[in-house]
Amino acid sequence: MTRTPTVGIVGAGQLARMMIEAATPLDIPVRLLAAGPEDGAAKIWPHVEIGSPKSVEDLLRFAEGCDVITFDHELVNLEALRQLEADGKRVYPSSNALLHAQDKLHQRRAFSAAGLPVPEFREVAGLDDITSFAGEHGWPVVAKAQRDGYDGRGVWVLESRDEAAALVEEAESNGVALLVEQFVPIEKELAGLIARRRGGEYALYPIVETVQQGGICVEVVAPVDVPEPIRAQAEELTVAVAEATGVVGNMALELFLAGGELSVNEIATRPHNSGHFSIEACGASQFENHMRAILDWPLGDPGLRAPVAVMANLLGRGDDDLDGGVPAALAAASPGVHPHLYGKSSRAGRKIGHVTALGEDREETRARANAAAETLMAATAAARGAPA
Amino acid sequence: MTRTPTVGIVGAGQLARMMIEAATPLDIPVRLLAAGPEDGAAKIWPHVEIGSPKSVEDLLRFAEGCDVITFDHELVNLEALRQLEADGKRVYPSSNALLHAQDKLHQRRAFSAAGLPVPEFREVAGLDDITSFAGEHGWPVVAKAQRDGYDGRGVWVLESRDEAAALVEEAESNGVALLVEQFVPIEKELAGLIARRRGGEYALYPIVETVQQGGICVEVVAPVDVPEPIRAQAEELTVAVAEATGVVGNMALELFLAGGELSVNEIATRPHNSGHFSIEACGASQFENHMRAILDWPLGDPGLRAPVAVMANLLGRGDDDLDGGVPAALAAASPGVHPHLYGKSSRAGRKIGHVTALGEDREETRARANAAAETLMAATAAARGAPA
Repeated sequence: MTRTPTVGIVGAGQLARMMIEAATPLDIPVRLLAAGPEDGAAKIWPHVEIGSPKSVEDLLRFAEGCDVITFDHELVNLEALRQLEADGKRVYPSSNALLHAQDKLHQRRAFSAAGLPVPEFREVAGLDDITSFAGEHGWPVVAKAQRDGYDGRGVWVLESRDEAAALVEEAESNGVALLVEQFVPIEKELAGLIARRRGGEYALYPIVETVQQGGICVEVVAPVDVPEPIRAQAEELTVAVAEATGVVGNMALELFLAGGELSVNEIATRPHNSGHFSIEACGASQFENHMRAILDWPLGDPGLRAPVAVMANLLGRGDDDLDGGVPAALAAASPGVHPHLYGKSSRAGRKIGHVTALGEDREETRARANAAAETLMAATAAARGAPA
Repeated sequence: MTRTPTVGIVGAGQLARMMIEAATPLDIPVRLLAAGPEDGAAKIWPHVEIGSPKSVEDLLRFAEGCDVITFDHELVNLEALRQLEADGKRVYPSSNALLHAQDKLHQRRAFSAAGLPVPEFREVAGLDDITSFAGEHGWPVVAKAQRDGYDGRGVWVLESRDEAAALVEEAESNGVALLVEQFVPIEKELAGLIARRRGGEYALYPIVETVQQGGICVEVVAPVDVPEPIRAQAEELTVAVAEATGVVGNMALELFLAGGELSVNEIATRPHNSGHFSIEACGASQFENHMRAILDWPLGDPGLRAPVAVMANLLGRGDDDLDGGVPAALAAASPGVHPHLYGKSSRAGRKIGHVTALGEDREETRARANAAAETLMAATAAARGAPA
């Protein structure tokens, strides 16, 4: 008799948590590599090892107990993954695919070489690279950290040579390498989601619109409302980028729409915030199809089961945990809004959960999702359901 | 700040497993009392105590770490529950409500006194009670164990005095008390599902048809296809029985339809096999609404999200585990069939999982669900997805 392969998830945040929620009904054995026992996924799963995704030793030891390795985030030691791949371990996404998400300069070069639409860009060795780039393309320009960024920041809009000089100095002192890009006057942000098996079979989700505030995604609306040729092009780009990166598992492609043209913003080679709506809204969620894809199983139906689905993120406002606010949110939510709490402590701006509303009408569904999110965030103090 | 109460689930089978699947997105803290670490729910949850639901001591110790107690099954020590209730612990369903599911004679007497339609019945002190009952109502009659039954059996159709005599002797030697009932020539079996809060607010699911083979439920079709007055009466009976028992949480009412009349077969004061379809088919599943109800939270929408939903049980055929058969099932299932595996080892006739299909057409959806279940059960040997 065969057995279902054991999936090792590196990282134990909300994406790992929702992967586990999808894996349990399929009885897929999962092991977690968590930074600590209080990680969102570690609190709800019994098979947890504590270790660092940056440590070769921790990753190799963790992988011994797993048949397939996948990821909650990109901040992983690629050397360890290459070693595992050389030893024949299945790592999905592969180290090569993951590099596109980890290294923005690599991604821009690879996509540009593949003929995919990316903004003009240049590697930054010093201030002169930014000023000469701005001389060609005009201010403002966008500077990005090639990799992790620092202090939680990785993207800066620079209006002048002075701002550029300050950033270059700051980045150098933090050991952060930069690239510079054309500023895109965004009309809309779209995202494409796809789950892909190693033979190339894929499940493509409906293209969505993502709404950002202060650089943080606050809302996702499915399907996107754009002219049909734009929507079709977004689908084609999603498939093309998945093939160019060779990703196995879920991939999200963030796209800018400006002047009627689409360009690639970022990719994530894993389940992504822009696909959380799929849990209730689609035949199979991005989390379920990610697990199916990395196991090379037939994929589930990515089609929408309702005319409109809207996801609103729950962003922390301070140190108040959500805990206790659920009843009020449920009251506001009913019917047709589904809360998802991640078991994380709250900090200002931190994603601590989301709600998804299904409906018939776009604006009514948006209003319902956002009202439920607002109620949930506001009601922590006055919650019912307190223990006796 | 308030915190969400901790729910203690007594028993760790598939119902507990699916309660946990519903509790996780709501971040409801759950503790499990499992018979052993290999119980289906114990394998997927980190907060597990090992103990016996028949032991007063184990139950009282387990309850210390919980705010609300609920159940995976009825085979629980009622004395311990009464003691917990006297100490002010919230036990849902209450010991009184649970007694209706635990003790069939008590249930028949209570429902009969409340004017609810039950078959004629009589307590059996000896063989004479059966033969005189059969003299009044004719053979065959149905004998039932008042409580647990033995060897997995609790219902017997008796055709003659000889069969009755054999059963009475066997039951006495096993210490099993019996009752006898009228044989009902069943045309259809229906089930009503309801989740009820302590103030009486309830969420009523669509009435379903259940299909049995050899006394085991093999299929559930939602909604039921019966004349409207019958369907409406089934709803009324479900609400009336929930109120008569005072149940808090989910309740399932199994009904017989014979000669155009409904009568009560059994009740379960918890989530139930006849409601598994609700996971994908309804706005809020029976498991989610069970958790909401016992926490006295506003209830979610029990309405169907598709015209038809069909659940087919996966019944073990021998010692083959399902493990490894998932990929083939997914292939057969796609699109629109959702597998749920319980993490249990297989035995002939044992429920080791289920699949739910959603669709537009009743017979097409039934065929799809049953084909997926058949493929999943048959394909364990030839499965893809085996580890390298």
